[in-house]
Order: sequence, then C-alpha cells, then structure tokens
Amino acid sequence: MPTTDVAPLAASLPEGMVVTDPDILEGYRQDRAQDPDAGTPLALVRPLTTEQVQTTVRWCAANGVRIVTRGAGTSLSGGATAVDGAIMLSTEKMREISIDTSTRTAVSQPGRFNFEVKEAAKANGLWYPPDPSSFEICTIGGNVATNAGGLCCVKYGVTTDYVLGLEVVLADGRAVRLGGKQLKDSAGLPLTKLFVGSEGLLGIVTEVTLRLIPAQSAASTVVGSFASVREASEAVLEITGKIRPAMLEFMDKVSINAVEDMLHMDLDRNAGALLVAQSDAPGPAAAAEVAFIEEAFARHGASEVFSTADPAEGEAFTAARRAAIPAVERLGSLLLEDVGVPIVALPDLIDKVAAIAADEQVMISVIAHAGDGNTHPLIVFNPADADETRRAHSAFGRVMDAAIELGGTITGEHGVGRLKKAWLPDQVGPDVMQMTAAIKKALDPDGLLNPGVLL
Amino acid sequence: MPTTDVAPLAASLPEGMVVTDPDILEGYRQDRAQDPDAGTPLALVRPLTTEQVQTTVRWCAANGVRIVTRGAGTSLSGGATAVDGAIMLSTEKMREISIDTSTRTAVSQPGRFNFEVKEAAKANGLWYPPDPSSFEICTIGGNVATNAGGLCCVKYGVTTDYVLGLEVVLADGRAVRLGGKQLKDSAGLPLTKLFVGSEGLLGIVTEVTLRLIPAQSAASTVVGSFASVREASEAVLEITGKIRPAMLEFMDKVSINAVEDMLHMDLDRNAGALLVAQSDAPGPAAAAEVAFIEEAFARHGASEVFSTADPAEGEAFTAARRAAIPAVERLGSLLLEDVGVPIVALPDLIDKVAAIAADEQVMISVIAHAGDGNTHPLIVFNPADADETRRAHSAFGRVMDAAIELGGTITGEHGVGRLKKAWLPDQVGPDVMQMTAAIKKALDPDGLLNPGVLL
Repeated sequence: MPTTDVAPLAASLPEGMVVTDPDILEGYRQDRAQDPDAGTPLALVRPLTTEQVQTTVRWCAANGVRIVTRGAGTSLSGGATAVDGAIMLSTEKMREISIDTSTRTAVSQPGRFNFEVKEAAKANGLWYPPDPSSFEICTIGGNVATNAGGLCCVKYGVTTDYVLGLEVVLADGRAVRLGGKQLKDSAGLPLTKLFVGSEGLLGIVTEVTLRLIPAQSAASTVVGSFASVREASEAVLEITGKIRPAMLEFMDKVSINAVEDMLHMDLDRNAGALLVAQSDAPGPAAAAEVAFIEEAFARHGASEVFSTADPAEGEAFTAARRAAIPAVERLGSLLLEDVGVPIVALPDLIDKVAAIAADEQVMISVIAHAGDGNTHPLIVFNPADADETRRAHSAFGRVMDAAIELGGTITGEHGVGRLKKAWLPDQVGPDVMQMTAAIKKALDPDGLLNPGVLL
Repeated sequence: MPTTDVAPLAASLPEGMVVTDPDILEGYRQDRAQDPDAGTPLALVRPLTTEQVQTTVRWCAANGVRIVTRGAGTSLSGGATAVDGAIMLSTEKMREISIDTSTRTAVSQPGRFNFEVKEAAKANGLWYPPDPSSFEICTIGGNVATNAGGLCCVKYGVTTDYVLGLEVVLADGRAVRLGGKQLKDSAGLPLTKLFVGSEGLLGIVTEVTLRLIPAQSAASTVVGSFASVREASEAVLEITGKIRPAMLEFMDKVSINAVEDMLHMDLDRNAGALLVAQSDAPGPAAAAEVAFIEEAFARHGASEVFSTADPAEGEAFTAARRAAIPAVERLGSLLLEDVGVPIVALPDLIDKVAAIAADEQVMISVIAHAGDGNTHPLIVFNPADADETRRAHSAFGRVMDAAIELGGTITGEHGVGRLKKAWLPDQVGPDVMQMTAAIKKALDPDGLLNPGVLL
C-alpha cells in the first residue's frame, strides 16, 4: 500500500512547499478538460529547483506514491487531472529564464508562461514562434509535454522543432541532460525528441533549452468570407500548395457569429466560413504573397476580401480567431476536439463533422489551423440536459473516428491525456501500443509518472 | 550458437535474393568509414518489399542471427560496417517512390537516393530540402538512420524535421506504421521522432513519408575571403544573429587550395578562410539580405566579396564546398570529423582544432556548415606511416574531446556508428547511456539489430 503520510516528504523540503490543505488541493484537481473522474491529490508540491523535484520523486519512488505533473492546468485532454492518492507536482514556481543571444537560445524552467518566453526573446530581438491560442496562460513545460502547436505552425513548426535540450528528472529521481545549445546533434538515440510530446509519462521536465530565431518581419493579413466551408477549405489547399503562409486560420459560421457577439468587430455574419491568412515574407515580397492569397480567395468564391499591411489591424483578426473558443463557450459547455488530417482531407473532415452534428442533433462549431489540417470542432451542449450530454459525448468519439478513417490523428497538438486514450489504439494499432508500453516500462518500470494518461 | 546455414532463409525468399558469393560479400563489408575491424557477413539479403524484410528478420530472430542494415554504404562513422556472422540487409533494391501533391508528401522506400527524392519532388513543383554533401550517393533510409543534415539546414532544418511517418520492421518481425501524412500529430509517444537518428538500433525502416515544401526561390550567393578563420567565424555569428541565411558554409585555407587544385575556379589561394552564404528570400528581399551579408563580411575584414544573383554561378561555389572532402582526400587518407558546438563557440572550436593539429603534427583541414556550428575537421594522414596514423587517430579523439568541452556534440549529422561510440558516454553521461540501453532492450531485447553501434 502506498503511504498516505507526507510528513517525511514535507520535512525534507522547505517549509510550506508541501501543501495538504483541502481547500487548496481542490483547486488542483481539475485541468481545463473538466474530467468528472478527477481524483484528489494526496498533497500538492510546488518545487523551485530541480533538486526539490528529485527529492519529491525519490520519496514517491521509495513509498510507491504516484505523481502527476502540472504546469498551469490548461490541458484540454485531461493530461494534468489529479489522481487519488498521488502527489500533484506543480511547476508553477519554477520560473527562472535566461536568454543567450550569442547562441540564440532560451533556457527556461518549466513554469514560465509561453508568452513570457516570447517576451523574453523579443526583448533581445529574437522570436520564439510556437503560439498555442492559450499562450498567455499555458506554460512552456506543458507545451513540451504535449508538443503544443498554434497558429504560426503552418510555416514555423511546433514545439518539438524548437526544443534543443532538456533537463529531465527520471522516475527514480536521477536528473539527466539531453541535447544542449548546439543546433545539430546526432549523438545517440534522439531522446530529446522522445520527451517532447510524451505527456509526462517518461520523466519530469525541469529545464528547457529552446532555439530562438530572428524576429519575424511585420505580417500582412488577408481575410476572406466564403459562402461555404468547402469553398474555404479548397482555397486553403490552393494556397498551401504554392506558398508558405505564416498563418492560415479557419472559422465557421457559428464561431464567426459567436465572436461577433462578443467582440463586435463587424465580421460578416452571413458568411459560411472565414479564412484569416498572413504573409510575413520580408519587404516587398509580402505584397506578392498577399496578392496570391487574395486571388486564391477570389477563385474559390470569396464574397469579401480584406487585406491590410498594418500589423495592429491584422492582429485584431488573429485575436478574433483566438477568441473563438471562449466565444463559442458562451453558447454552452464545450467538448473541445483537436483532430487533424492530411491536408487534402480537410474538406471531407469538415463535411463529416457536419454530418455527425446533424445525426447527433448537437451544435458543432469548427475552427481550424486550416493550413496544417488541424481542426478544433467545438461540441456545444447543455450539461443539465442528460440526453444532449450523451449525444455530445457520442459526437466527440465519432469525430475522432472520422479523423482516423481519413488517415488522420485524434490529436494534433493537445495530447491524448486521459480523455482520448480510449481512441488511441484505434489510431495507432496494438503493436504501437505495445511499443509504447515497453518504452514506458523501460523508463518508469513502476508506473509512477502521470498514471492513467495514454496507457 | 547462431546458425550459419542460410539455405532455409534463401528458400523462403525469391531466388537470388540471398547472396553468399564471397566476392560479392566482400563489397558489402565496408562503408565509407573504412573500419579496419569490419567483419564478413554470413549472407547478403537484398529485399524488394516490407514482407521480405519481415521474413528475413523473423528468420534471424528465430535463429539468433544478427542483422546490419545498409543503404548505400556511405556512412562516415561505421554505421553500416559488416559484422561477422550477421546478415547484411541492403535496402538498395527498395526503390519505390511516389509523390502526393495534394498532401505535399513523398512516400519512399528506403533505397532511393536523396537526390532522387529531391528530383521527384521538383518534378511536382515541390522541394525536399535536406542536402547532405553526399546527396547524390546516399539513400533516404540512411538519411533517416543518421538524421542527416547538409548545407541548407541552417535555415531549413535536418531530416527529422521532414519525416512525418515511417513504416518500420521491428526486431521480432512485426511491421508497424508510425505517424502519417498529417502535418501535426500529438497522439501517443513521439515514436516517429525516436526512430529518426536511431542508427538502425530499434528497427528497420522500410518506408518513409516525407513532408515537402513549395519550391525554393532562386538563391543569391555571396562569397567572402577572410585573412583568418577567426574573422570568418565572427562574421558568421553576426549574420546568423540577424537573418536566416539559406546557406552559410566555411572552408579553411587547406580546403580552399585543395579544391582550387582540383577544380581550377580561381578561388583566393591566399585566403585564410572562405565563407559561402546564400539568401533565398523571395523577390527583392534577397537584395536586402545580400547587402547585409556583404556588409557583415566587410565589417569582419573580408578582403574580397563577390555576389551573384545567378543561381548557376552560385551553384559553382556550393559545388566547390561540396567538393572539399574529395579534394582534401587527394592529399592523403582522411579521418572525417563531424563535431558541432553552440554557434558562439565556433571560433573557439576552430582554434582548438588548430592547436590539436599543431600538437599532433598532423594536417587538419576544417570545413563547416558554419551557420549551425557543425564542423567537419578533416584529419589528413598517410596510412603507410604508422606514427602519423597513430597521431591522426589521437587527433580524431581530441577533436571530439574539444567539442564536448565546449558544450557541443561528437556528431552533428553523421551519427555515432562504431567509430565514435567510445566517446559517446563522455558527451551524454552514464545515465543517458543507461536510458539508451533500456530503450534498446525494450524494442530489441536480444540485440539483433545493428550490433556494435552506439552501445
């Protein structure tokens, strides 16, 4: 039986670092996925240093106590939900960060918010591209755990493309360094990459070394209104086949109207779909890309096309797209999807989602990082209506089934967590599940780290 | 005892697929590392299909026979050297390739040459960027095994950045599919990434799905001659801090002269170092980047600066840089290094290499993918001179020690293979070696795949 007496752990860490106050623990049970099966942690530990993480892990390992690691708790797939009897290790106080302009790298503890990494880079004339919509409230440690994406990924890639090195505390309490500040490294198995997106199953990330790139050129923005989602998604295919837009986002009619209700920015309420594209090509080259995007929009029937080279004006549309989730959330509770498909299947996926919505009689609003085929169908339901709740959950699974059928993935950037694990075997198959379990067992034989996620 | 009778394997594969002719086997003992300890394979198998790879692996697993997988045998670190009593599995006949323009992906069997993948993409208006100097003679399967790099990586990344999916035959003969044509995928452990750069230790790659991007804009080229390697490397730092050049290559005096002897293209024989930079910024933006590079060259004392917007003229200098290895090879036998450092340490690394050369009394010519801190010190020696050979090998190790001391890596893009494995623990430490062994054991418990590499 695992111990329930955390006094020895508390005694080995600075005073107040181990918290057992039930009122405080209550605030650490849930992440943004609001899993009804969330447990209650044995205790909350908020370390400052790698050594304190090691102390915690060693005590857990010695006492058979499991550990859930949490950044800011913004997981949309239940990756940071509390487990009964387990320690909740929050990295929120691990906030040291430094920028090394000579190597163009950031070294950050996991608790820094994504936007803080961006700002630290910017203060040094540099840029950290990955930009999940939650960038103001999600941590870089969580971004590493889920291989987080965002809006600029269509041109600039996802978190893994920027992680050069990690410090990780393993399940037995050893701390290891993987990679470093060198840009290229083929020495040994690519363990740095193995940890990015491993959802806390293989170790606890205590430091991240990130590649930064020169500051982005000012972006020009093109916004187009389309009569139908299919026309919009076909415009997407034409654009990504010819150029690399810096952003290519999609909103459907429901999300356009929800955002308009909230932000009053004069969006076309009658549009079936809206695309927001950006070009950050340097200097006058942007004008050529903007012209191409405008033409592609027009060729696919866009009724209104608006372009601006003013970054502030463009940012308003990016902000509108980012506001889509909270805006749609005002219509009801949400089940937030994250399915992705090979880009060519984007129109089919959107059609299938509409068919599922009709069949289940639930509202599904689709927003998407359209340029990379990653969509976020938002399933809206009233939790007080038991039947609608059941139909919403049925739609949630069927949307994943549709993505798998189209050769895609159940999650493009949020991770599997606890909410989607039932669908993972359908996507990857039993042999890959067995490999996953074998690697988990090799690095965490007693299953102490983030139990219940993925496996 | 493993069997030495391959007749049953031969009987289960098409006639002629299993080769035991000693004259033919002789040609498969070595790769480009010319390891004096190379063994002789039990037999050579040249499958055409994944199923034939599975048949081979299953027979090997059942009979305790180990397997070395080989692409074109261009490994510079002994990753494809034959092992006594092991099957040599050559992927040279696995050459199916298809381009899917709708998803902008290539699906290739492992035996296609890198240049063929590039050409297939180009024929469809697309581009596969990674470009090892050996791109005309190395296979895409080998590129995946070593996470190969090249000249354009400074802006466009390395092989792993383009691998979306893999089919892999595991050590027990099961074939699994990892990833796919979707651009973003956070479902499950990032196993696709784990296999890219795993040097054949975890499975045999039988199909690769590669991301392609829109064709590159025509590149402008800037070439600068510097009095010293330090001035040139400081120019590199200034440039990469401000812009993302599409190429930034370095040659030292020895390599400049060796190339000039071979190609007679009027390079500056008196220069201490030469930098070859490219900008592929679209349209007129290239001119701004070219001007910045020219100014940076001048600020760091370049005596001659030549620029051209003519791609063919620029390609001559790229070809000169690519010719450096064969050109220097005309001066003697080579030990070819591949050390990398955080970019800021590039001048120090080059100084240290010069000091090692002086101390060991051997010639070391340095060429580099300077923009990403990845250098190829070429240690020149006469194999008939036992003492010089000993000093060359001593220098080989000391160059790796120097890179480790500067926080860098013993291999940026060639892999550890058999030649560098003695130095790997010094770089990554015992805990990472133990993790490596644990993962190897999890996926290949009997150690059948590429024995003697890394571990």
